[in-house]
Amino acid sequence: MSKIAVIGYGVVGSGTVELFETNKKSICEKVGRDIELGYILDLKDFPDSPFADKMTKDFTDILNDNEVEVVAELIGGLHPAYEFTKQLLEKGKSVVTSNKELVAAKGAELLKIANDNNANYLFEASVGGGIPIIRPLHKCLAGNEIEQISGILNGTTNFILTKMIKEQMSFDDALKLAQDNGYAEADPTADIEGHDACRKICILGSLAYGKHIYPENVHCSGIKNISLVDVEYASNAGYSIKLIGSVKPNDEGKLVAIVCPMLVPKNDILSNVNGVYNAICVTGNGVGDVVFYGQGAGKLPTASAVVGDIIDALKHQQRVLALSWDESKGDNSFMTSYKESKTAMYIRIECDDADNFKRSLSTVFGKVIFIERENRPDNELAFITKTMVEKDIDTELTILSHSAKILSKIRLY
Amino acid sequence: MSKIAVIGYGVVGSGTVELFETNKKSICEKVGRDIELGYILDLKDFPDSPFADKMTKDFTDILNDNEVEVVAELIGGLHPAYEFTKQLLEKGKSVVTSNKELVAAKGAELLKIANDNNANYLFEASVGGGIPIIRPLHKCLAGNEIEQISGILNGTTNFILTKMIKEQMSFDDALKLAQDNGYAEADPTADIEGHDACRKICILGSLAYGKHIYPENVHCSGIKNISLVDVEYASNAGYSIKLIGSVKPNDEGKLVAIVCPMLVPKNDILSNVNGVYNAICVTGNGVGDVVFYGQGAGKLPTASAVVGDIIDALKHQQRVLALSWDESKGDNSFMTSYKESKTAMYIRIECDDADNFKRSLSTVFGKVIFIERENRPDNELAFITKTMVEKDIDTELTILSHSAKILSKIRLY
Repeated sequence: MSKIAVIGYGVVGSGTVELFETNKKSICEKVGRDIELGYILDLKDFPDSPFADKMTKDFTDILNDNEVEVVAELIGGLHPAYEFTKQLLEKGKSVVTSNKELVAAKGAELLKIANDNNANYLFEASVGGGIPIIRPLHKCLAGNEIEQISGILNGTTNFILTKMIKEQMSFDDALKLAQDNGYAEADPTADIEGHDACRKICILGSLAYGKHIYPENVHCSGIKNISLVDVEYASNAGYSIKLIGSVKPNDEGKLVAIVCPMLVPKNDILSNVNGVYNAICVTGNGVGDVVFYGQGAGKLPTASAVVGDIIDALKHQQRVLALSWDESKGDNSFMTSYKESKTAMYIRIECDDADNFKRSLSTVFGKVIFIERENRPDNELAFITKTMVEKDIDTELTILSHSAKILSKIRLY
Repeated sequence: MSKIAVIGYGVVGSGTVELFETNKKSICEKVGRDIELGYILDLKDFPDSPFADKMTKDFTDILNDNEVEVVAELIGGLHPAYEFTKQLLEKGKSVVTSNKELVAAKGAELLKIANDNNANYLFEASVGGGIPIIRPLHKCLAGNEIEQISGILNGTTNFILTKMIKEQMSFDDALKLAQDNGYAEADPTADIEGHDACRKICILGSLAYGKHIYPENVHCSGIKNISLVDVEYASNAGYSIKLIGSVKPNDEGKLVAIVCPMLVPKNDILSNVNGVYNAICVTGNGVGDVVFYGQGAGKLPTASAVVGDIIDALKHQQRVLALSWDESKGDNSFMTSYKESKTAMYIRIECDDADNFKRSLSTVFGKVIFIERENRPDNELAFITKTMVEKDIDTELTILSHSAKILSKIRLY
């Protein structure tokens, strides 16, 4: 009998077991043979679970059972997920995972181990929850050179920003609501500071461009400094503020990767992605823009991606799906700083006599677009620069900071 | 040397050759060996083409060249595409295609021939142009029971409807503009009467539910009777009119497939898909709703899907990708009529003294929602019924037709 095992019986783990059992008949038909759930590994006890007889606390039960072909690693974090995954792959068992942290940190290495052992390491669930993106990017769009990947990759921050935009809720209130609804964790740092989105753009970029992009090489800023005043100015100028992860090659073919809030034009489809939904836009030199949209997190949506990978791994037993990218540790020469990239910038400043200050701005930034808002204080100015190399914007902002206080700067999408 | 061949050097064929040659280096890297374009089959002459030395008019050049592993059939229509495809598959060559007409008419048969001969028949390009949908549906969402597939599957009609909605352009003017822009053919019947969308929903439904759904078993109505008056009423009630293809099982598990204009709520993502873009929404019992969005047609977008399939077929040489569904010829017991389905209906009528007529309506339909428009004539009424079994709506409309003239009826999404 072919077996699968699930490591970690939390939200995604229990969802995976639930979806597998619910759809078992059609899953076995798709695989072409009978499959059963062999083990659930978790340190907690679940005496009342209908799967109590499958529970184990001993990893070697799974590792040493030759009938276990595919293991879903759903514990998250680096350790012991890394050690478990490595040992399983070395035994020739395929591993599927939603663990973006591990894939972003160790993807190249684990993919190589999988490859060397005729096993598969699949991670459709690590980006965009249930939204199909890894396989479409790797397979369906393989005929394209990828010109850019950008998207709303974190549902928690998109929920918060949506509340700020649609209901003028403050950041703090929106964060609390997200926590009350179970969308944000007690410690929301990874979400609101952009680390979660950063891991995801690293995975997508590594896959699209063939070299491991490490999170520490990606500029990452979150949304906690976004104020309702910025939301209002953005809206008046025709934009919504979204947390965007983006990776693209510059004109010399070097990669620029960044996670930050951006002003997205209201007629762009990303601007209309609300609540906990995610959307990822891939631009190819053949296909143009394609967008993948859906629930980026949650128990059953994420389980959907995990179970899809389980089926694929079972169908490709002992055959490698050729998903891989090269290690890049210690060599970042294929990347370049976002400071060398061009962008337009929304800037809000505090200054004496704003209307008078407008004139002196043009001597710094050239032509800018000023934005108004109702009851704008006399000492406040908001404007959008023309598209410039970002380090040149910084230079001008340094000059400006002698006579004004820089309150916000947000890139344009 | 491994070779590919292209049959049909029209829009998609020339796009496929262009994209393959442009991205050849990375394509060969992905496949893991050198690949070259062996032949282009077309009845026309292209003496000035840079690929003039690859041109042939003799199908057997391709059929009998053992180095040709994958053939892109891009001539469209049933014949000789069917005969060519069959002979190639029987020789163990994989065939990839954008030919929705052939897949919708002969998919089950050709997939079986491919399977029997250790070859692949792939058709990502047949639905949604460059949008990845076939493989995501078949692979990534394999862990789900599919509850519904619905979408905007035809770019030409969506362009026309967008012009009618956004610019109050008449159907005839919008069709002419589409033709002038090359979005609609001289004979636009297949697009505007919904046949093109119908073939696509048949392919998606066959793939999702495992039995061949034939176009002749799908109720199909197009957009040529949509008037600007209906567009205005729909908008006032909070809807956009879109041509939707849909397939889903009813409560007894029987499939209902339909292509028709529908009133889509303005806050639904499909309502915001404009111009020649397509979007396909798949609802799974795990994943919830996921949406795939992009250019549904065009030279390079469609070529992107063709080249993606070519790469996949080359990588899976002599291995079958297990894409298939069962023949259903002569047995439609797995389907049921849309007349048995529930829907709410937008209805516009002409009657004497509309305001007086309102009261008598409630004796027929029960509670309905009346819609207003500026300068509504005294003899016109528009309303939306509650959700009812469609054949019961028809019964009531027959009663109504004794005292009023039915001008429009459009289902709600």
